[in-house]
Amino acid sequence: MKHITSPHNATIRHAEQLQRKSKVRKKEGLFLVEGQREIMLCDRGGFELQHLLVCGPILLDSQDFQASDVYEKIGIASNPEIISVTQDVYEKLAYRTGTEGVIAFAKAKSNSLKDLKLTENPLILIAESPEKPGNLGAILRTADAAKVDAVIIANPVADLFNPNVVRSSVGCVFTVPTATGTTTEVIEFLKSNDINLYAATLQSSKRYDAIDYTAASAIALGTEATGLTQEMRDAATQNIIIPMSGAIDSMNLSVSAAILIFEAKRQRDFK
Amino acid sequence: MKHITSPHNATIRHAEQLQRKSKVRKKEGLFLVEGQREIMLCDRGGFELQHLLVCGPILLDSQDFQASDVYEKIGIASNPEIISVTQDVYEKLAYRTGTEGVIAFAKAKSNSLKDLKLTENPLILIAESPEKPGNLGAILRTADAAKVDAVIIANPVADLFNPNVVRSSVGCVFTVPTATGTTTEVIEFLKSNDINLYAATLQSSKRYDAIDYTAASAIALGTEATGLTQEMRDAATQNIIIPMSGAIDSMNLSVSAAILIFEAKRQRDFK
Repeated sequence: MKHITSPHNATIRHAEQLQRKSKVRKKEGLFLVEGQREIMLCDRGGFELQHLLVCGPILLDSQDFQASDVYEKIGIASNPEIISVTQDVYEKLAYRTGTEGVIAFAKAKSNSLKDLKLTENPLILIAESPEKPGNLGAILRTADAAKVDAVIIANPVADLFNPNVVRSSVGCVFTVPTATGTTTEVIEFLKSNDINLYAATLQSSKRYDAIDYTAASAIALGTEATGLTQEMRDAATQNIIIPMSGAIDSMNLSVSAAILIFEAKRQRDFK
Repeated sequence: MKHITSPHNATIRHAEQLQRKSKVRKKEGLFLVEGQREIMLCDRGGFELQHLLVCGPILLDSQDFQASDVYEKIGIASNPEIISVTQDVYEKLAYRTGTEGVIAFAKAKSNSLKDLKLTENPLILIAESPEKPGNLGAILRTADAAKVDAVIIANPVADLFNPNVVRSSVGCVFTVPTATGTTTEVIEFLKSNDINLYAATLQSSKRYDAIDYTAASAIALGTEATGLTQEMRDAATQNIIIPMSGAIDSMNLSVSAAILIFEAKRQRDFK
C-alpha cells in the first residue's frame, strides 16, 4: 500500500486542485468526495472510485490496516486503490477533520439529457442557474427523499461536483439522476418527452396547488435573486406561484422546491 | 453626533460582547442587528432600537450626514441615537463588510408563552431544541411567508437573537411572533388553548397529509439528530411522518417544516 507523509506530494497537490478548481474537475472528469457515507453513496450511485486517501487512525483507529478493512468499513462494493496518508496530510485536505478519515477521487459520469432514464410518468425538478452550492445541495437532498426521476440544472453556474454541493447534499448528488443543459436544450427535452413544465414565478396568479401534477411534470425554479429566465417562463405549460403573506416576499430556493415537489408527491399518493 | 474612530472604544467592545456571547445578550436584554432591511424589520416588529452604529461612506456615500438621513435611508419610524463610526471600526464588527453600513443595538422583548397573541384558529410551528442557528433562521423565514401565528422554541439551545439566526432569517426573527418555554410548558400552553399537536417523527405511520389542519393546530419538529423528545411525542394528538423514498432517510429540518406548514396552509386555502 502506498503511503503519503508529505503534503507536497503530487497526489495531494492534485487533490487540492480538484477541490478548489471547477476547471480542473471538468477538464479531468474527476472530483473529490469526503466522508464515509458520501463515498458509499457515490459507489452505490454507479460512480467509479479511482482511489481512496485513507487516514488509518481516524477511519479505523489503527495505522495498520488492509484495503479490505477500508472497503468493509465504508460499505463499498468496488475495490479502488487505497493510499494511506498521515493525519497531517489528511487534515490539510479535509473539511471535517478528525471525523471521517477518508477522501475519494471519483470519476464524473455523463450529465447529458439524452442519457436520462425516465419512468413512464416522470416527475422532474429543474433548477435554472442555481448560484449557491448550498442551495443546490439542499435541493438534491430533498429530491432524493422525494425520489424524483431527475434533477436537471439548466444553464449551470456552479458545477455539480463542487465540494460544497457534495457536502450539503449529504451525498444525494450521487443518488439522484442529474443532467445539465442550456435552457433551450432543457425545454426541447421536455417537449420531445411530452412533459408538462410548471414554472415557479412571483408574478403568476395561478396557485401551485391548483395544478394537477399526476401527469408527466417538471417543476422549474430560478435563482433567488432574479427568478427564472423569460425563455423558461414563456415555454411553461403554466406559471405557478407559492402564495406568501408575510413581511418579506421571498423564500429560500430549496424550501420553495420542497413545497412544490411534495405537493406533486402528495397528489401522486407518494408513489 | 458621537463619532468613534477607535476599535478599542467601550461601545465597540460592548458590541463585540453582544455579538459573541449569548450570556451577555441574555443578561442585558440587548442584541445586535446588522443590515438595513433587518433593522427596518426589527423596528417594524416593535423592538426598541437603542442606538445605531453608522458608517457614513458605506450607508450614505458620505462622511457628512444627519440622523434624519439615516432614518430615511433605512426606513425606520423610531429615532434612535446615531453613532458615527469609521470604516475600520465598522468592518471590525460587520459580517457583510462594505455593503450595509449600519448595525443596531436593539432591546429584546418578552418571549413568554403567555404574551403570545393568537388568532381564533391558530397555526403554530414548534421547533424543539433546534441546534443550528441557520436552521432556526430558515424556519423563521418560512414561518414569515406562511404567516403562522407563532413559532415556539421548546427547550431552546441557541438563543433567538444569535447573529446567525438574525442573518439566516433575513430579519424574519422580528416579524414572526415567537415564544420559548420548556417542552412541558409548551404542551401545557397548547392544552389550555385547545390546540391540536402534530408531532413529526420518523417512526409514525400516519402520513402528514392525512391530517386535517383546519382546526387549531401546532406542528412540532425535533432536532435533525435525535428528533422530538418522548415527552412531546406522547403529548401529541397524532404523530405524523413525511414519507421518504430515497437512499437516505432524513431531510433538512427547515425543509421538513416548510412541507408540513404549507400543507396546513393549503388545507386552509392560504387564509
